[in-house]
Amino acid sequence: MLDVITVDEAIKTVEDNFCRITGTETVAVSAAAGRVSANDVTAEENLPPFSRSVMDGYALIASDTYGASEAVPAMLDISGEVFMGKEADTVITNGKCVRIPTGGMLPGGANAVIPVENTEEDNGVCLVYKSVSVNENITRAGDDIKEGSVILRKGTVITPAHAGLLACAGFSHTEVVKRPLIGIISTGNEISPVDIKPAPGMVRDVNSHLLAAQCSSFGCDTAFYGIIKDDYNEIFTAVNKALSECDAVLISGGSSAGLKDMTAGIIENAGTVLAHGIAMKPGKPTILGKAGNKPVIGLPGHPAACFFVTEIIVRKIIDVLLGKESRSITKEFICDDNISSNHGREEFVCVKTDGERAVPVYGKSGLMSVICQSDGYIRIGRNLEGIQKGDKVTVYLFDR
Amino acid sequence: MLDVITVDEAIKTVEDNFCRITGTETVAVSAAAGRVSANDVTAEENLPPFSRSVMDGYALIASDTYGASEAVPAMLDISGEVFMGKEADTVITNGKCVRIPTGGMLPGGANAVIPVENTEEDNGVCLVYKSVSVNENITRAGDDIKEGSVILRKGTVITPAHAGLLACAGFSHTEVVKRPLIGIISTGNEISPVDIKPAPGMVRDVNSHLLAAQCSSFGCDTAFYGIIKDDYNEIFTAVNKALSECDAVLISGGSSAGLKDMTAGIIENAGTVLAHGIAMKPGKPTILGKAGNKPVIGLPGHPAACFFVTEIIVRKIIDVLLGKESRSITKEFICDDNISSNHGREEFVCVKTDGERAVPVYGKSGLMSVICQSDGYIRIGRNLEGIQKGDKVTVYLFDR
Repeated sequence: MLDVITVDEAIKTVEDNFCRITGTETVAVSAAAGRVSANDVTAEENLPPFSRSVMDGYALIASDTYGASEAVPAMLDISGEVFMGKEADTVITNGKCVRIPTGGMLPGGANAVIPVENTEEDNGVCLVYKSVSVNENITRAGDDIKEGSVILRKGTVITPAHAGLLACAGFSHTEVVKRPLIGIISTGNEISPVDIKPAPGMVRDVNSHLLAAQCSSFGCDTAFYGIIKDDYNEIFTAVNKALSECDAVLISGGSSAGLKDMTAGIIENAGTVLAHGIAMKPGKPTILGKAGNKPVIGLPGHPAACFFVTEIIVRKIIDVLLGKESRSITKEFICDDNISSNHGREEFVCVKTDGERAVPVYGKSGLMSVICQSDGYIRIGRNLEGIQKGDKVTVYLFDR
Repeated sequence: MLDVITVDEAIKTVEDNFCRITGTETVAVSAAAGRVSANDVTAEENLPPFSRSVMDGYALIASDTYGASEAVPAMLDISGEVFMGKEADTVITNGKCVRIPTGGMLPGGANAVIPVENTEEDNGVCLVYKSVSVNENITRAGDDIKEGSVILRKGTVITPAHAGLLACAGFSHTEVVKRPLIGIISTGNEISPVDIKPAPGMVRDVNSHLLAAQCSSFGCDTAFYGIIKDDYNEIFTAVNKALSECDAVLISGGSSAGLKDMTAGIIENAGTVLAHGIAMKPGKPTILGKAGNKPVIGLPGHPAACFFVTEIIVRKIIDVLLGKESRSITKEFICDDNISSNHGREEFVCVKTDGERAVPVYGKSGLMSVICQSDGYIRIGRNLEGIQKGDKVTVYLFDR
């Protein structure tokens, strides 16, 4: 029998044994969304560099408008105009104003802008029908970003908004963590390529495609090292080739305690087995190993089990390789049915969400079609006997 | 003044005027995650094609185990072994069983599997310590996918799980909608390239980078047509070049009602203006237009306004171009402060989430730094006067 560890222990094992090992590269900020920032990025100047108007209107001294109304407008001399993209060379004094466009540089002396819709021009005089307070309708120098402040933290997953902020601060390019390269090996005498109709007793090599799609969605590149028969030497050779070329190696199949299990022995030979068996359902026959500083993971051959171990454990490994914080999108729902569970293993149950309810998706557990019909999954702790209809449950959403 | 429409009317205008216009292409299922399925995909065979065991154990007839216990085991003759990847040629009759590995093909006559841990072998006899019911520990032919059923609907965003299901069904490749190509034009005399320190009165061309990052995260490719001065003929030429090469064109800047506004006239000349002004804050000075069947959109020059219009309106346009259903990830929180709002415009307010609370992010509205510090935004309807501390609010999460 396997000496299993819990899911939490497996996560801890990953955190304790692995670290960011890939290098960095420079990419255009427009292509940086989804990548992981390799450094703290510090602003080299104030943003905006000068105070400016956020409205089309007139730049003025706010106190000149106090008490102004439709009935009793303030009257200010128009002493000129600020042009977009030009330095404002006028200085405003009491009783004066200048025309200013949205984004225009605020002239010296001015401390507010009155929008054009609250004014009327008459013969060189601006009639102001509403008062404005100091700093109203302007953005002051440094309001958005202060020189010397960190605008993007190392390890942050860059969003389009971050790309915009980097551009604001004058960066057209930024340094990100390289996408780790994940080697994928399928093993098993019964495994045949996906696009060939399997001979009797054979099954398709689903996992190499599934793993490539999952790893790609986690921000990695992948390389496939083929379908290898259950032969110690052949698998050992493939694992070593993948280890020499990749940042981590995933070996699908051959990880049950059955007769043909030899993955653990191969990992032990190439490095160290950190854990053999995780108390999760599906997904128990999982092997965590390392060779040098590289993860070598034996995954269950069953696609649905492979999917969940990859979703929970491999995702965490890749987050560590990328140096990024792990995040899940979760949401609370009311469980719509009783779910029994007393396996001593943490159980992952697919659910569809419907309004405030999470409805378990029935069918043989661990079918890819069931996962595809689901919006997410709930986790039932290994010490729980199950979940009652009406219980509050946390759903881990697939869509992200 | 602009004749504005509401956000809902803008969404309806998009739905009524645009449709999927890009072609399709075939990609490996391992590279299909995030792409949009171009067709309904129908299974051509049952999955699994044969009934098989989900445990290492013994295939048998369930009724032979009824009443079996630790004290009184059932005793079955072991009449052979099923090998992984081989056809099961034995036929099980009452009183007999065969050894079977996980994934092994169920032999004829057998209707259940007893796991190895509930048995003991003794001299060619299997002692069964527990009863199993019919179909227990097996997956029947067609349990996962029925021949002729649709396994992936047209317009679905393909997830890694779908990639796995396609591989299960024998597809190594699948047809997806091509990534639309979005042309991006920056306009404005005050706009200078991002990596040059702006001269006084000038501002950086943030929007071309921001828009490229946003459109890329929506599943598009982008092409940049440069920073164009506020000159009718130059902008008109750039718009027409972009229209001839792209599936949609985004024009940043020049869309306020200010003096230099000419984008609406240019769109009218190239096609039709569908709406000029959207009752949203930030984002009012937005122009929805079309030329032939291609969207031509005038976006506010202010980056934060540009961000929100792109998040709400351009995202919807791209969903329509891709033929996919629009989705947001939302979550309910308790608003942590009073937010006033009585602008007659739907207002978008950035929030940080903290436990069950949504905390409005203060600062001048519409700064990229504020958006970057936020977890999402709340929408305050244009007819509401604001939100009270303690109100339940729906947060649209940025992270997806």
